[in-house]
Amino acid sequence: MELSEDELVKAVARLLSGDEPGVVVGPGDDAAVVEPGAGQLVLTTDLLAEGVHFERGSISARDLGAKAITVNVSDVAAMAASPRYALVAIAAPGDVDAAWVVELVGGMRVAAYERERVLRAGGDTNRADLVVVSVAVVGEVAPGRAVLRSGARVGDRIVVTGSLGAAAGGLALSRAASAARPDALSQPWGRALIEALERPIARVGEAQVLARIGATAMMDLSDGLSTDLSRLCEASGVGARVVLGAVPVAETLSRGAEMLEIDASALALSGGEDYELLATLPGDAVEAAREELRAAFGVDLSEIGEVVEGSAVVAVDAEGRTAPLEPSGWDHFARG
Amino acid sequence: MELSEDELVKAVARLLSGDEPGVVVGPGDDAAVVEPGAGQLVLTTDLLAEGVHFERGSISARDLGAKAITVNVSDVAAMAASPRYALVAIAAPGDVDAAWVVELVGGMRVAAYERERVLRAGGDTNRADLVVVSVAVVGEVAPGRAVLRSGARVGDRIVVTGSLGAAAGGLALSRAASAARPDALSQPWGRALIEALERPIARVGEAQVLARIGATAMMDLSDGLSTDLSRLCEASGVGARVVLGAVPVAETLSRGAEMLEIDASALALSGGEDYELLATLPGDAVEAAREELRAAFGVDLSEIGEVVEGSAVVAVDAEGRTAPLEPSGWDHFARG
Repeated sequence: MELSEDELVKAVARLLSGDEPGVVVGPGDDAAVVEPGAGQLVLTTDLLAEGVHFERGSISARDLGAKAITVNVSDVAAMAASPRYALVAIAAPGDVDAAWVVELVGGMRVAAYERERVLRAGGDTNRADLVVVSVAVVGEVAPGRAVLRSGARVGDRIVVTGSLGAAAGGLALSRAASAARPDALSQPWGRALIEALERPIARVGEAQVLARIGATAMMDLSDGLSTDLSRLCEASGVGARVVLGAVPVAETLSRGAEMLEIDASALALSGGEDYELLATLPGDAVEAAREELRAAFGVDLSEIGEVVEGSAVVAVDAEGRTAPLEPSGWDHFARG
Repeated sequence: MELSEDELVKAVARLLSGDEPGVVVGPGDDAAVVEPGAGQLVLTTDLLAEGVHFERGSISARDLGAKAITVNVSDVAAMAASPRYALVAIAAPGDVDAAWVVELVGGMRVAAYERERVLRAGGDTNRADLVVVSVAVVGEVAPGRAVLRSGARVGDRIVVTGSLGAAAGGLALSRAASAARPDALSQPWGRALIEALERPIARVGEAQVLARIGATAMMDLSDGLSTDLSRLCEASGVGARVVLGAVPVAETLSRGAEMLEIDASALALSGGEDYELLATLPGDAVEAAREELRAAFGVDLSEIGEVVEGSAVVAVDAEGRTAPLEPSGWDHFARG
């Protein structure tokens, strides 16, 4: 870095700060001071590390910054809460250009403030041997109204927003043999897969609609449907029966499946980082939720199965055959 | 790691959780839900990265975990706020033993709850190519009562708690030629220097006393007196005149100076990670503050100089000679 650590810290603080209602003391002091709202506080933290969650040469600094905010906002959203404040800790090696860090913070700014209206409350900049972006988000929810993973009841319908597998398709594409990659990237579906991986969206408003309409349990899909549904069922002490044909496979993934030599349906079940919502709803609430999500956000809601007694999570195929839906252990960028 | 990522996450969640008043939803859901207090929120985050802030073979996992909490608690304390909740994100390579991570979290637990009464609200565990421990702490302060860096006024006295330089002495000792190290570590002062580096204490109660007695500006000493005082003066738009002979050099550092071939006074000025408080007080408040800190905490308060007009930060030596006190650019474990 050509800037000194102090100069870089100041540049980051300038980018993070702004005249924002609610922020009493912004970046630059020992800690930030902000006004609380009337509700309970919702707290989450998640870090993205080079070599595991991203490769520096593959994602732009701007997209990386935005994604680091979004994955945290998504966790707050999945509680049916409103994200309010973001805290940022960045570590970068000495060979990282200061302009790269400034772009990273710029991406955080766009995702946090311009898109999600999350205020940037503070930050910390360090050196390290690899790039690490750690974000904490503070949100707010009316007392007792957070929607947990543990509330699913037998008979509830299992729903997911949007479609699944595109981010995993983007990862497959970014790792594809170099000959196939330019061809795929020349196609709209190829670019859409990469975009799904690098520019995820958090379903903040959608989660609040689902909560209002009666979601009994909710979480965001960060590690893949099979893994995350198992967690929800374990937390709720229930089982689940998923209709494979009802799982919404991303259209872009289906279109790229042949060229990428992947099984689109399998990736939609096991691929992580979609940041769609997984929720359980009483049967009579599904239609209202579907209509409102479509009208308000243009987002699909798919009913993919049902909460059942016991603890088994099973999938039913088109022929009516049932098999356990094993957690796939999605591990982001982990090497093969 | 012999545990799977999910097993490790669960082990960490168990260690982090507990029946704690105020925590509505603890670790294990998308986010934690906690009860707010009546005051403003104070937010800070700081990460410790292997190779920069620590070496894995040098500090124990337990001490590292405790220190990651303490450095954040210290930032909240320096605002004269009460730390309330801690969020933890951990990254570790695959070759790190699960027991090591469990020890790390155990250290966090001791520092957070048993020592500082900070509740552990949530966490996140990842893989990465090096160990990174990122903590965010949420605190609370009565509206308008946070003590910032920017409030120092001309004529205020500059004070520091405790004594300075021991952590830097511990760093010097840990890097000393291997022949000198066993000798030093056989001495009480040698062990005390290492302890100062690896087991810092946050001055939570002391900061609240200083605020109540009238501190106009306050911060914690993480990057060394010369660097941090320059920041305080810049934020306040003032200069400072420091009496070198009044700077409290850690006694353990003075005793080890000859064997370690270091200048104890210079390290007390420039060495970081002491986590003592630097504050400015009206002249007539110093004596009361000194007495109360001694009576309540057994902690010394030293008056080391005065806030002056302008922007220059200068040091005066025993002969009355004045020289600029240059920020030293303390860089933790950065390699020489």
